[in-house]
Amino acid sequence: MKKSTLRAAFGIIALSLATGVCAQVKPEDQIKFRKAAYSFAAWNSGKIKANLDGTYDAAQVQAAARAIAAVANSGMSALYGPGTDKAVGDQKTSVKPELFTNGAEVGKLAGDFATAANELLKAAETGDAAAVKVAYGAVGKSCKACHDQFRSRD
Amino acid sequence: MKKSTLRAAFGIIALSLATGVCAQVKPEDQIKFRKAAYSFAAWNSGKIKANLDGTYDAAQVQAAARAIAAVANSGMSALYGPGTDKAVGDQKTSVKPELFTNGAEVGKLAGDFATAANELLKAAETGDAAAVKVAYGAVGKSCKACHDQFRSRD
Repeated sequence: MKKSTLRAAFGIIALSLATGVCAQVKPEDQIKFRKAAYSFAAWNSGKIKANLDGTYDAAQVQAAARAIAAVANSGMSALYGPGTDKAVGDQKTSVKPELFTNGAEVGKLAGDFATAANELLKAAETGDAAAVKVAYGAVGKSCKACHDQFRSRD
Repeated sequence: MKKSTLRAAFGIIALSLATGVCAQVKPEDQIKFRKAAYSFAAWNSGKIKANLDGTYDAAQVQAAARAIAAVANSGMSALYGPGTDKAVGDQKTSVKPELFTNGAEVGKLAGDFATAANELLKAAETGDAAAVKVAYGAVGKSCKACHDQFRSRD
């Protein structure tokens, strides 16, 4: 089995397991929590960028990388359950319907994000700004890959 | 210097440093990001509770504890800058004005939250559900202590 196929299969299994364990979260809250997770990651991503562009504070970069890795490893597939493909209550969403019908691709992209985030954390723990810069670029690409396919512009 | 005084002093220093580094975040985004961080922590807290009340999945609890610790150690004081004491744009806030005038107490409570979250992560890494239950209770108390003093009910 190829690595990408394995990853996709793992994504689907993770999705099933996580959906089972966390079925008690209401659709409206699932949308709220997933947007919160991405916002929290975005804030921490901005801090890493500021450190790479300015004065490098290794402790701050490590804390931010831990935050992004925590998001990537938090089992967010549980937050894309039935009824979360469009706005619920006051929670809007920019997710495209395709996300809910292409589990293999979503699983692969989620795996890529986790891998990239874990590599970023490893790089941050070394304190080597050049390595962080490379790993940070890879995380950005993994975010964009999913946005390009599964996030609408509105 | 007593431990509590040290913690408070550390909180103030951390606040100053973090505010300096992250001054580029707009007040509206500061409110958005801090609410996102707490929401992300709340979702992960809910997962730990579900694990303690039901079937215990050590890997899921570890991931959730990492998420809460990442929030607690992310330097959130940077998200309580000038102009974030009331709603900005479409970002509402439940923060009380007292938070902005009682840095010593806020620093102490933030330190308590980080300590409790780090203890929870240590407990989660052992896989001992009983230890996690105790540490989880302490995190809940540290959340409540801040809410009681600095969050309004509306």
